[in-house]
Amino acid sequence: MKNYMITVAYDGTRYKGWQVQKSTEDTIQGKLQKVLESMCGHPVEVIGSGRTDAGVHARSQVANFHIDDNFTENELMDGLNHYLPGDIAVTSIAQVDDRFHSRYNAKKKTYIYRINTSEQSNVFEHRFVYEYGAPLDEKLMVRGAKLLLGTHDFKSFCGNKKMKKSTVRTIYDINIEKIGSEIRIKYTGDGFLQNMIRILTGTLIEIGRGDRTYESVTDILNTLDREVAGYTAPPQGLILEEVEY
Amino acid sequence: MKNYMITVAYDGTRYKGWQVQKSTEDTIQGKLQKVLESMCGHPVEVIGSGRTDAGVHARSQVANFHIDDNFTENELMDGLNHYLPGDIAVTSIAQVDDRFHSRYNAKKKTYIYRINTSEQSNVFEHRFVYEYGAPLDEKLMVRGAKLLLGTHDFKSFCGNKKMKKSTVRTIYDINIEKIGSEIRIKYTGDGFLQNMIRILTGTLIEIGRGDRTYESVTDILNTLDREVAGYTAPPQGLILEEVEY
Repeated sequence: MKNYMITVAYDGTRYKGWQVQKSTEDTIQGKLQKVLESMCGHPVEVIGSGRTDAGVHARSQVANFHIDDNFTENELMDGLNHYLPGDIAVTSIAQVDDRFHSRYNAKKKTYIYRINTSEQSNVFEHRFVYEYGAPLDEKLMVRGAKLLLGTHDFKSFCGNKKMKKSTVRTIYDINIEKIGSEIRIKYTGDGFLQNMIRILTGTLIEIGRGDRTYESVTDILNTLDREVAGYTAPPQGLILEEVEY
Repeated sequence: MKNYMITVAYDGTRYKGWQVQKSTEDTIQGKLQKVLESMCGHPVEVIGSGRTDAGVHARSQVANFHIDDNFTENELMDGLNHYLPGDIAVTSIAQVDDRFHSRYNAKKKTYIYRINTSEQSNVFEHRFVYEYGAPLDEKLMVRGAKLLLGTHDFKSFCGNKKMKKSTVRTIYDINIEKIGSEIRIKYTGDGFLQNMIRILTGTLIEIGRGDRTYESVTDILNTLDREVAGYTAPPQGLILEEVEY
């Protein structure tokens, strides 16, 4: 068996997320596995660097899989792209060491969350932005974001209340940029909990519209209670930008 | 009554084109009229610079309408953008001379047709490109395009076989650019017949893949018969880029 690493881009709008569910094919992992299985003639497990929620996109999700085949890398990539739907594409492929594991070996992830603050929607990218439609004070959001940097227990920002494993994570950077009427928040960390970036974003939006102070971030972190953090921003504004190894 | 000129951007994917049809609201003109009528309290006719087919997009469609109101330009634009769906946006508005007519006064139109020749689909813009998925010789397409320039009877490139008015049009320029694996054809002319750009594009694609010679363009023009021209390329690759007055 050979081990391949691929990078995958997808428009997550019409999918139930990355992860295969029982009795549904409408997942990115499911679509990839189906094509590989029909190309290779045996069951294939495509291991992603992490799950993305329903409706969340990726520019460079990383995954790996073991297959028994005689394809060249180019043949595999062309075959995948030929049979995959138009909203999923394999953007690179490489045979890697047998021990490579896209989830266990991931060191750093970068996500971008895009918020359109204008009444005028972003017609050509409205599938990839949160059409918030009202002004936000990004300077306050920047102050709140600073308090989130570093290693913390992010239990208050975890969407899975039954999470039994550690909720400690490290955020290396949160970069908030204003581009015209769009606010773009770029999060880099060693990993993120379920819904974490969407809850961080909802909290920063509440700060930006004046519903909570930027200093409240410290209280939220200390309280370790999901109920005190902000709302979960919708999935369409979020994209997994890069996974580093 | 005041006369307003607007520019409108839209993702045409889920619409039955620009023009209002009987018993359907799923048109761009219909959506604009509905919002204006509820804002102004009287029937409004939104006159477009021309129709776009079902599934065709626009970056800057121009339209005008007469209304009786006390709104400022900004209020009108914000109101429209607030009530319009996320795939339609008004990008500018200006009160104009009462005699301005967006169709009669249009001097020049520019359309862009985008073709992806790669097996790897353009995930983030797949609603705006024709996923052709095979190589094309753009040098042959450029030669064919040169023979289309100027004033001709374009009856062979007209999708409406019952067209009774003149089918003579002038094409000022056809620019064919290759950007990575994408071929982008920019057409500028004084006006275009129904489906004309899509038939021109289908014909250029047949030249680019070697199914017909570039010189055959002259025969097609001379024959004045739709049957001898190429196929009608699908709507999703086409966008109305600009209308000049």
